[in-house]
Amino acid sequence: MKHGTSDRKIGPLTAEEYIEKGKSFHGSMAPGLLIGGFMVDYARKNLPGGEFFDVISETGHCLPDAVQLLTPCTIGNGWLKIIDTGRFAITFYDKSTGDGVRVYLDPKKLESWEEINSWFFRLKPKKEQDSEKLVAEIIDAGPEILSHEPVKVRSDFPARPHKEHIVLCSSCGEAYPEGHGEKCMGCSGLLPFI
Amino acid sequence: MKHGTSDRKIGPLTAEEYIEKGKSFHGSMAPGLLIGGFMVDYARKNLPGGEFFDVISETGHCLPDAVQLLTPCTIGNGWLKIIDTGRFAITFYDKSTGDGVRVYLDPKKLESWEEINSWFFRLKPKKEQDSEKLVAEIIDAGPEILSHEPVKVRSDFPARPHKEHIVLCSSCGEAYPEGHGEKCMGCSGLLPFI
Repeated sequence: MKHGTSDRKIGPLTAEEYIEKGKSFHGSMAPGLLIGGFMVDYARKNLPGGEFFDVISETGHCLPDAVQLLTPCTIGNGWLKIIDTGRFAITFYDKSTGDGVRVYLDPKKLESWEEINSWFFRLKPKKEQDSEKLVAEIIDAGPEILSHEPVKVRSDFPARPHKEHIVLCSSCGEAYPEGHGEKCMGCSGLLPFI
Repeated sequence: MKHGTSDRKIGPLTAEEYIEKGKSFHGSMAPGLLIGGFMVDYARKNLPGGEFFDVISETGHCLPDAVQLLTPCTIGNGWLKIIDTGRFAITFYDKSTGDGVRVYLDPKKLESWEEINSWFFRLKPKKEQDSEKLVAEIIDAGPEILSHEPVKVRSDFPARPHKEHIVLCSSCGEAYPEGHGEKCMGCSGLLPFI
């Protein structure tokens, strides 16, 4: 029997096309990346207006890659930012007005999705997960496990980076923004090097 | 006259192919993204050994996107991490041994590259920059403006994320890792929302 939601779309892509794209970029089609695809789609459809948006991801796991795959926002161009609250949520907002929409995986909607619920709440070890069933459930569920709320982003976010003077570190000799202090933060012990 | 370095390669790509790929992902071929391409290439060629590596970028500007374009490491799959020292540098390292190579834009090597030097040290306003000359200089320079050093990454980096218990926030009702505290960090004011 044909799966009832095999024609589920993620933006202009079929779920299968998105999965291929995701595997190529992310290395595998992690459950969070697949749910993330539906979250991006859902956020775009519920944007309060306008064409341009910036994105905040509330986790560094998987979700940022869904944003990078499906929108012009990347971590390196600055239109995507990660603020790690540990929640599985993204916010799309218009930088000029601050108006945005926050989309989150809604625990209240997970009850009827056993495999997703079990994965999300880490109810069983990874090796006991039924990956195929999990992926099928996520595609079946699509946006049905998501909720959204309007948000207003503060106009002073992000703190506008000063076009700071670039100076050479007296310790390593490399260039860094003067405002970071007397030495660069690499020489101040920020890096995990022995 | 044919440009002397028009056959400059970035990994398997010509500079022109990389520029196209970069524009598509990053939105534009920013100077830092182009230099980043050469940095990734240079890091791979100077890896102390092995095929697998994780990456640390010391800036969030542009450089992470060069890594995401040219390696399997992304911000969402966790093989790329950003530790913002403000320096224009990346480290490729073997997670099992900690052995790695750090590649940085070397200020001492910029003297003979007027346009790159002026861009990097912000010596003139953006509108006075000669973008074409800057791109041509970056391609000409290739790895000649880079230096590298061996590094050893601490074995406790990154702090292994506990497979923490996931609980519901008493304030918003969403799921978050129990170790974050009594409320989720979204409800504790981490987000820039009004």
